[in-house]
Formats: sequence, structure tokens, C-alpha cells
Amino acid sequence: MSIAVLRLGHRLVRDDRTTTHVALVSRAFGCKKIFMSDVDDSILETMKKVCADWGGSKEFDIEIIQNWKSVINSWKKNKGIVVHLTMYGVNIENLSLDFGYNKNILVVIGASKVPKEVYSLADMNIAVGNQPHSEIAALAIFLDRFFQGKELISTFQNAKMSIIPSSHGKTVKIRKPKN
Amino acid sequence: MSIAVLRLGHRLVRDDRTTTHVALVSRAFGCKKIFMSDVDDSILETMKKVCADWGGSKEFDIEIIQNWKSVINSWKKNKGIVVHLTMYGVNIENLSLDFGYNKNILVVIGASKVPKEVYSLADMNIAVGNQPHSEIAALAIFLDRFFQGKELISTFQNAKMSIIPSSHGKTVKIRKPKN
Repeated sequence: MSIAVLRLGHRLVRDDRTTTHVALVSRAFGCKKIFMSDVDDSILETMKKVCADWGGSKEFDIEIIQNWKSVINSWKKNKGIVVHLTMYGVNIENLSLDFGYNKNILVVIGASKVPKEVYSLADMNIAVGNQPHSEIAALAIFLDRFFQGKELISTFQNAKMSIIPSSHGKTVKIRKPKN
Repeated sequence: MSIAVLRLGHRLVRDDRTTTHVALVSRAFGCKKIFMSDVDDSILETMKKVCADWGGSKEFDIEIIQNWKSVINSWKKNKGIVVHLTMYGVNIENLSLDFGYNKNILVVIGASKVPKEVYSLADMNIAVGNQPHSEIAALAIFLDRFFQGKELISTFQNAKMSIIPSSHGKTVKIRKPKN
């Protein structure tokens, strides 16, 4: 089983910060990969630096795509499940997230308006509540419920830094480089 | 019991989209109020329109503040609990979110670097995982766990529109205006 994210509708400049958040959440919450359309280099640099500092460069991958439809179609062809997060979908509170053993899941989230076709191509349209809010929040909640919180205690390989949780301060452990 | 959000460190233009997401998540996930520093008018207009269309103008309030420290201090003076969400804090996976009956909670989240003083002023520094990701995601997960999912099925008063959840489309119910 592995889980990936497909980010649709990124608008240059306007969505740079939110798409960065989407990519960071994808990495931190246990996804193996994010597919994105052509984005500003700063987003890729941020992700590269985060993986270099906090680990995960071998566990988390970014693929720049030209055609979102072919990503969805090839995912389905390989018997993966496509989940589209949208406020119009079935409320996650009324759903089981048990997708069956060993299924690969592609989570589709939009920035701007999502093409109508996505709603029919997706195996499931899931609403993290039926109110307008944030695709970053929707992705995080979906993953938190899917992994049942285990994603929040996961660690990454080759981290130069890690946090020692603290009730009232900042404690960062720095790994000494090997000679 | 009521819960409010204090948004710190908003940077004009750069954080406009993320602060909008923070405000939308606050409304959609059961908070009564958000305190923000001076933000672009477009954020206030977005929130006004969302409350006009989807309801909640009487249930959700925005207060523009000059001094974050006085908000925290007056919250504590009134025996409320101040929770700061930070990747350096105690992992939410290892915490009970039972804050006691009838306590008012202020959730503090930063955009840019948060002043050191916040870590000591807060009653609790809570990490939604100890990896870098997104304050929007952290706020959503905290609220989802705090309200145990009930926030995702809540409705708002005076909504002109509401969604009828759909597995493969968009169905919006429009309320007819009273004569």
C-alpha cells in the first residue's frame, strides 16, 4: 500500500505558498509522492531543503506532470484507487476509509476550480465536511484519519535534524556528519 | 466552552492566501472567533461573503488586533487556556485533549517565526507531529481531534446555500429568500 497526492490547478505566484503547504503536508503525513504541474522553483527548493534537513529525500518524491488526466488514468489502470477531496462529496464522517488490503491510493486536491471530469473519474469524492475551507486542511484530515495518527510519530531516514518534543521551548537534535 | 484562534505573524501579500485558509478552517471547524493583526481587506471580504452565502455571520467573528500579547494575557486572566501549535511542542499523539469542563481555549498559530515569549506564555505547546508542515493543517487536525469529528457535520444559521453530499457531482441547495 502506498499513497500519493495529485495537486491540480496550481496558479503561479498566487498559489505558491498553499502548494508548498500541500507538499509539506504530503511528506509529513506519510505520502510517498506528489504529482504537481509546473510550479515555481522556490517550491521545489523548499522541499529539497526540508528533505535534506529533516530527512525523507529517498522516501518522498515530487513529479512534475504535464497532463493530470493521464496520471489518473494510469493510476486506475494499475488498479489503484482515486480519491478526490471536495466539499461537494460524501462527508468523511459518514464513510469508512477501509479501501481494502494493499491498495494504492491517489488523493486528488485542487487549488482553483477543479474540472468537472475529475468528479466522474474519481472512484470516490470525499468531503472533509461540506463547508468551504482549505484543501491543505482537507488533505491533512484525510491522511490523519487514514493512518489513524500513526503518521504523526513517523520518522525519516537521513535526517540531519530532529526535534525533541518540549512543553515550553525548542530542542533540536543535530546529527553529527559521518567522517 | 468556546474556542478561538489567534493568528500571529501575518505578512502582507505573502500570507494572504494562507491566512484566508486559516480563517476558513476556524469557521468551518467550530471556532467562534479569530483574532488577526491588520490584514488585507480581501481576506475580510472573503470571510464576509462565505458567512453570507454559507451561514455563520452571527456564529463566527473576526477581530483585528494591535497587540497579540494583550489578547493572550487577557485570555489567561479570564481563566481560559492558551494552546500554541508548534512543531517543537509535545506530540498531540501523546496527549489527552481533555482540558476540563467549560474551559475557553485560545489556539495560537504563527505564519512566520513566532516570538520566543509565546512558548512560555502558552499553557501548552502542542505539536501536530514534529515535522515541518503547515499551520493550516495543524489547526485543522487539532480541532478535528478536539471536537472528535462533530465539527464536520455542523451547520450554520442563515445559510443561503448548503451542499447535499454527492458521490459524483455537485448538488447545492439554494434557500429561497423570505418575502
